[in-house]
Amino acid sequence: MLEIDFFLDLAIILISTKVLGLITRRLEMPQVVGALIAGVILGPSLLDVVFETDFIHKMAELGVIALMFTAGLETDTDELKKSGKASLVIALFGVLVPLGGGFLVSWLFAGSSLAQMTKIELLQHIFIGVILTATSVSITVETLREMGYLKSPTGTAILGAAVIDDIIGIVVYTFVSSMADETVSLMSVVTRIVLFFLFAAVIGVIFYLVFKFLSYRYGKKRRVPIYGLVFALLLSYAAERFFGIADITGAYLAGLIISNVRQADYISSKFEVLSYMLLSPIFFASIGLQTRLSGLSGSILAFSAVLLVVAIGSKVIGCGLGAKIMGYRGKDPLRIGVGMISRGEVALILAGKGAAIGLMNNTLFAPLILVVVITTLLTPVLLKLVYKGDTAAIP
Amino acid sequence: MLEIDFFLDLAIILISTKVLGLITRRLEMPQVVGALIAGVILGPSLLDVVFETDFIHKMAELGVIALMFTAGLETDTDELKKSGKASLVIALFGVLVPLGGGFLVSWLFAGSSLAQMTKIELLQHIFIGVILTATSVSITVETLREMGYLKSPTGTAILGAAVIDDIIGIVVYTFVSSMADETVSLMSVVTRIVLFFLFAAVIGVIFYLVFKFLSYRYGKKRRVPIYGLVFALLLSYAAERFFGIADITGAYLAGLIISNVRQADYISSKFEVLSYMLLSPIFFASIGLQTRLSGLSGSILAFSAVLLVVAIGSKVIGCGLGAKIMGYRGKDPLRIGVGMISRGEVALILAGKGAAIGLMNNTLFAPLILVVVITTLLTPVLLKLVYKGDTAAIP
Repeated sequence: MLEIDFFLDLAIILISTKVLGLITRRLEMPQVVGALIAGVILGPSLLDVVFETDFIHKMAELGVIALMFTAGLETDTDELKKSGKASLVIALFGVLVPLGGGFLVSWLFAGSSLAQMTKIELLQHIFIGVILTATSVSITVETLREMGYLKSPTGTAILGAAVIDDIIGIVVYTFVSSMADETVSLMSVVTRIVLFFLFAAVIGVIFYLVFKFLSYRYGKKRRVPIYGLVFALLLSYAAERFFGIADITGAYLAGLIISNVRQADYISSKFEVLSYMLLSPIFFASIGLQTRLSGLSGSILAFSAVLLVVAIGSKVIGCGLGAKIMGYRGKDPLRIGVGMISRGEVALILAGKGAAIGLMNNTLFAPLILVVVITTLLTPVLLKLVYKGDTAAIP
Repeated sequence: MLEIDFFLDLAIILISTKVLGLITRRLEMPQVVGALIAGVILGPSLLDVVFETDFIHKMAELGVIALMFTAGLETDTDELKKSGKASLVIALFGVLVPLGGGFLVSWLFAGSSLAQMTKIELLQHIFIGVILTATSVSITVETLREMGYLKSPTGTAILGAAVIDDIIGIVVYTFVSSMADETVSLMSVVTRIVLFFLFAAVIGVIFYLVFKFLSYRYGKKRRVPIYGLVFALLLSYAAERFFGIADITGAYLAGLIISNVRQADYISSKFEVLSYMLLSPIFFASIGLQTRLSGLSGSILAFSAVLLVVAIGSKVIGCGLGAKIMGYRGKDPLRIGVGMISRGEVALILAGKGAAIGLMNNTLFAPLILVVVITTLLTPVLLKLVYKGDTAAIP
């Protein structure tokens, strides 16, 4: 009757991620940090009591779909229109500079020459850059709201850039992950991506109308979020199965497509319950379970330190540059850059997917978790520093 | 990349159970009926497009734990005290007569003599009786409420009896399923059950106090339902692992133990989302997936018909007898008996568990689904008949 051992695994995961999450929150860190630490403690690095079984793995995958769908669903497209061109330019530089930075760090540490590099090695280096592109803006939003700067010109620019940043990031990820298959050519990848986005656009229009109707006709009925989940699963499946595009791209697009329907908040609230009650803790724990602290050699530690510096610096420089180009003056470019530093679950989701398809080595989980944790901790502190001396425009 | 095929399976299960559930509801049948039919259609009997993988199986198990925990959580212990002795006697006879009836039908159809019967065969016959004990009162409640009889003396008796019926049923099931292991003696089973209930009583007092404190201290915070799920998983695990007692007994008790804390409704509402968004559809579909209509021989059809008659007759006679003993007169014993006819998810949960531990043959799923569906459909019709001519006591 050992079949029910997974009840014990689930109970351990749920209680430890929650308790550690609450502890980190009390220390003014996000709960994600605690959940990650819980996974590391339970995993092979320390206690080695919970294993990444097929069940845990699939639940984590489902958790990722739910998280990405919700991220798409909560995209504020009004914000996007409002912040417009400035945010677009900030986001663009805020993606390109970390992409290049991550690539450089990975390449330099590998110590191989560009000429000798195989295609897969090249993609692995680029992939480290891809992971560094994903901003997690929730910590910044909370801090700016508290300080009264959320609706200031820099606050609006940050919010808009974070939304666009996600979209550009997912396109870059889609591109790089699709190239991972040794047999495909650049041309076929581009074709597939274009075809998928055309497919998604057609499906998008149809499902947007379907959900608009459902929202209008049935309002807050259970079927609406259930159909939402079905839509997310189907678009994720179709992306990967028929176009060779990452499933998370499909999930994110599914959310984005119906982010404007009347019941988007209602759908999102039900996904939230599903996530915090079951799926998210399993996902964060599974990242921790895959982390091997014992593999932390001196060179990995050095890599972690350099990656962290590049992760911070590249966002500040990239976004700051974009802001400067768009006419922000004085401390404002720095403020915008600092507001984009923190990385979160999307970086972890990308790392998890990358490890699964051979674009990332498992030994890099530890450095990346470090980047997520430290950037998340630093952002509020740095924000308070760079906004100091200025009275809040809108209190 | 076939790994993501489970997204498609989930999407198919969710959409088909929901759509068929909505259709059956429109036909004034419960949604469970539609969900079951969806499973049968998707399974080997018809389309054969979804398979019961390890993942689906574990999700269904988790769904069962959530359902049983919620059943315990929603137990109205006030109702129980109020209806008191009358309901107890009604429930007792309403368990014993179907138990005997189910046993007799199964035994007679097997055609073996009692003397030649092996222990496991005996238990298998008894088990059919066990499945017939579980009343599902929700359809009755809805019908009586609509007719204005819910708070009448018969309505109160039915409600109370249905609660006690669940508790007696779970004790009988615990006993029979624990005997399924060929190597155990009657004495050791009794010892284990007594030890488990002692253990649960101690744990119960502790956790009741813990949850009372959590409820009071944290109110409607996420951690409260999360700890609820952890508690349900741990008690389910402990029951099976350390006492050889069915996990659903543990889950039900976990719910019962904290059914009186202030936030029981809040915990229950979060489990509801988890259930309808993901776990319940998978459970009902998995029952359908295990059903093999192709195995429906003439004798199974005859068995189904007799089982159905016994399922209905035994509840009417058993509960009616109990009501008569407790002094109900005129049409009232019949009304109470009819109110207890319908079977629902608990019968299916028991059948699923029984099949897993070798107490039930898979070919019996079809007859049992028939019993669940037909008794559920008949109950409102029969209730309207037996209450006819009487003006509602409390409109």
